[in-house]
Amino acid sequence: MESILRHRPEAVLEMFVYDKRMEKQDERLRDVLALAKQMGVGVQTVKREAMEKHAGAQNQGVAVRARPKMVGNNNDLQALLARQESANPLVLVLDGVTDPHNLGACLRTADAVGATAVVVPRRNACGLTPVACRTAVGAAETVPYFEVNNLAQTLSGLQKKGYWVVGTGLGAESQPLREFSLSGPTVVVMGAEGDGMRRLTTEQCDYLVEIPMRGYVESLNVSVATAVVLYHLRG
Amino acid sequence: MESILRHRPEAVLEMFVYDKRMEKQDERLRDVLALAKQMGVGVQTVKREAMEKHAGAQNQGVAVRARPKMVGNNNDLQALLARQESANPLVLVLDGVTDPHNLGACLRTADAVGATAVVVPRRNACGLTPVACRTAVGAAETVPYFEVNNLAQTLSGLQKKGYWVVGTGLGAESQPLREFSLSGPTVVVMGAEGDGMRRLTTEQCDYLVEIPMRGYVESLNVSVATAVVLYHLRG
Repeated sequence: MESILRHRPEAVLEMFVYDKRMEKQDERLRDVLALAKQMGVGVQTVKREAMEKHAGAQNQGVAVRARPKMVGNNNDLQALLARQESANPLVLVLDGVTDPHNLGACLRTADAVGATAVVVPRRNACGLTPVACRTAVGAAETVPYFEVNNLAQTLSGLQKKGYWVVGTGLGAESQPLREFSLSGPTVVVMGAEGDGMRRLTTEQCDYLVEIPMRGYVESLNVSVATAVVLYHLRG
Repeated sequence: MESILRHRPEAVLEMFVYDKRMEKQDERLRDVLALAKQMGVGVQTVKREAMEKHAGAQNQGVAVRARPKMVGNNNDLQALLARQESANPLVLVLDGVTDPHNLGACLRTADAVGATAVVVPRRNACGLTPVACRTAVGAAETVPYFEVNNLAQTLSGLQKKGYWVVGTGLGAESQPLREFSLSGPTVVVMGAEGDGMRRLTTEQCDYLVEIPMRGYVESLNVSVATAVVLYHLRG
């Protein structure tokens, strides 16, 4: 909520504050109110019922109404990558992550590790739903996010520009993550919960790495696995 | 559900199968039924409403009723550690993780990385609730789990036995995770969502490590951070 005021203030249409919270203003609320004023956002004090209507039963007493974020396409992704200056850009591709909690958690990690962009195929994606944005605790506003029509094309385009594509999966060709390191432009592809990457995506990878599973569970949650791989490569 | 039949069959009292699923038995169901038969567990075929009553609206058509898992105490933990044979035992301590989803996700990761035990202080713990067990996808049955009355005492006892205690936190004394490695008996302490480790716990640590945060979000989800640290040390 603060994140959207800071990073996408032009999208914020109005702000609501729960009346009981407005009465006893803490420092954090004063900061948010100052930010809203600076951005020219109108603030309404509302009763409990209205607050719950706007922000759900578990709200923190402050909410904004905002235009949805514009989601970039493949052209926007190429434009972003062309103007980024890091020697080690990292693009995270989520191939079939359909649970918005997992998408949000992956965005939070992508922000934390300093990823350049997050890319999902338009089909099979859950989209930046309110649940995804809430789970991302603000990272949905800060991490460049793109939905592409043809993931295979996007990946081969990135390969032509010098990106290495690293996929994850359990299989004969996978190497243990701990033995793998890579610098320079990198794409990390994470598969769906359950099924893993689609076969076509797997075939396009330059490297396949595997997170060791030493116990009884068969896989990690995809957002957990994403963090393990991204921090291994760029921690 | 299969996990409890395999790892704690003596606790299973009875099993329920949704009638529609019983009619079209797939291989997985046949395996579970064979397992139940072998363990002497009675199986009841039930209608949709009864299934939802036993296992919630989002069920997979099979459920068991079982005695809750006995949670070990400090003495049980010491006994387990005395008889374990690894040269690199790893104990995960969760200091104030109160969200059962996070506890379950940490258990799943602890299983995957091959941790020896998970320890929580009895106060401030959420307990092995049904939500925690479901999120752990079976790992609640496989990872030894202990609740201790006095965490400081447990930690100093482990230190006397040659364990190094590694805490996580952002602070002047923390070293970046990527530069840190440690073999031998190790305790990893993860703090609460939001507040981090309690001050007393922090003071007891032999090492403090820090996961770099390069973006706008202030922290990782505790289950994500746990996975990053555990796989860095034992990946």
